[in-house]
Amino acid sequence: MTTPVLVAFVSSGPGDPELLTLRAADRLRRADAILYDDLSSGPILNLARPGADLVGVGKRAGRASPKQDHVSRLLVDYAATGLRVVRLKSGDAGIFGRLEEETTALTAAAIPFEIIPGVTSASAAAAAMSIPLTRRLTARRLQFVTGADTTGGLPEALNWQALSDADATTVVYMGRRTWAAMSARLIAAGLSPDTPAVLAESIGLDGQRFTRATIATLADMPALTDGSAPALILYGPLADGVLP
Amino acid sequence: MTTPVLVAFVSSGPGDPELLTLRAADRLRRADAILYDDLSSGPILNLARPGADLVGVGKRAGRASPKQDHVSRLLVDYAATGLRVVRLKSGDAGIFGRLEEETTALTAAAIPFEIIPGVTSASAAAAAMSIPLTRRLTARRLQFVTGADTTGGLPEALNWQALSDADATTVVYMGRRTWAAMSARLIAAGLSPDTPAVLAESIGLDGQRFTRATIATLADMPALTDGSAPALILYGPLADGVLP
Repeated sequence: MTTPVLVAFVSSGPGDPELLTLRAADRLRRADAILYDDLSSGPILNLARPGADLVGVGKRAGRASPKQDHVSRLLVDYAATGLRVVRLKSGDAGIFGRLEEETTALTAAAIPFEIIPGVTSASAAAAAMSIPLTRRLTARRLQFVTGADTTGGLPEALNWQALSDADATTVVYMGRRTWAAMSARLIAAGLSPDTPAVLAESIGLDGQRFTRATIATLADMPALTDGSAPALILYGPLADGVLP
Repeated sequence: MTTPVLVAFVSSGPGDPELLTLRAADRLRRADAILYDDLSSGPILNLARPGADLVGVGKRAGRASPKQDHVSRLLVDYAATGLRVVRLKSGDAGIFGRLEEETTALTAAAIPFEIIPGVTSASAAAAAMSIPLTRRLTARRLQFVTGADTTGGLPEALNWQALSDADATTVVYMGRRTWAAMSARLIAAGLSPDTPAVLAESIGLDGQRFTRATIATLADMPALTDGSAPALILYGPLADGVLP
């Protein structure tokens, strides 16, 4: 194993411990303290050694959460004690993980860190559905976007032309609650309402579920409107190939 | 570990064995035969058990390679013998991995398979550069595109409006040889020539190197034009934050 520094940002992947990387598992086993988000907790924390501090600092979509600058301060405080600290981030830490606020705080405090990349949920969802995310000619571009800004609403100033491209695969992270508004904007921007879409919930975990629809019909499906599990929405030509 | 089926598509990640997932490492250790691409070979194949068949079927960019349908046939033939077969794919198998041709062939032969997702090279490159791939407000959309079609040329009919968005992070896979043409198209489509860009070579391996530039200046840099190592090009506002 590469030599770890005291602070490691560890990508948890989608939540299934077998989808941790070997390096991520190593850092979790060595850690004196693990600062984790609720979304990435569960069985992954079983890798921690007995006696390690397990500190929940995250949130679930829609619930109140500690302020981001509080998390950064806590991370700096732990690191300053000389403990081996893991900051566990769900999915890949670099994708919609608000990593930068925390790395900036460490850099300002002159504390070195490493970032361990991971499996982003889109990759895990596609693998579980036995579809690829790209296809020559018909899905040559792959794009990820978040469906929620920090207030939970649809982000301002999204690039609707890019997002309504019928020849791309688009994956919307954290998009459950804003999907009705988002799909209306996509259709207004020219994307066919019949474009295949799939809701992927609890990927790789108990309760994993895939719901096939179109970008128009998904908005009214109970799986979307009544559920609260972590979910991705994937749309584009490849969403049509999802196994039933 | 989950129970494997006989054929596993295993994502190798960017090439560093520590960035394999636990499940991927498990499948490699159990395999009777591993069909691998050159791009994902090297130390990862050391996980194979003694006596496993190691079969090279891939290519490096620009060199001749076995026909894709030959690979699919070979995979079906191996699986039909009842051996445990791993089809090792570089990066994440679902992203520019031409996975679908091979899964289609297995499905046609009624051979079950599993797909094990992995760390895509963009995530590994960003982690190694200590930057995130997304940022609220200024890089809210992340997109992956391939810079080469099957002939090695710039793909036809790319969405230049989407790719010239200054508020996105764009990662170009296999884009070394077409970058001069691609950057000219991006600038013609309105993206500032001063947009930060970085060439990431041999991510996580010996020879890892990052070359900072702009989308305009990268085209003439010797690191781009003279090199041949596997490389990504990442451009957008976050490419400016790369450590020197």
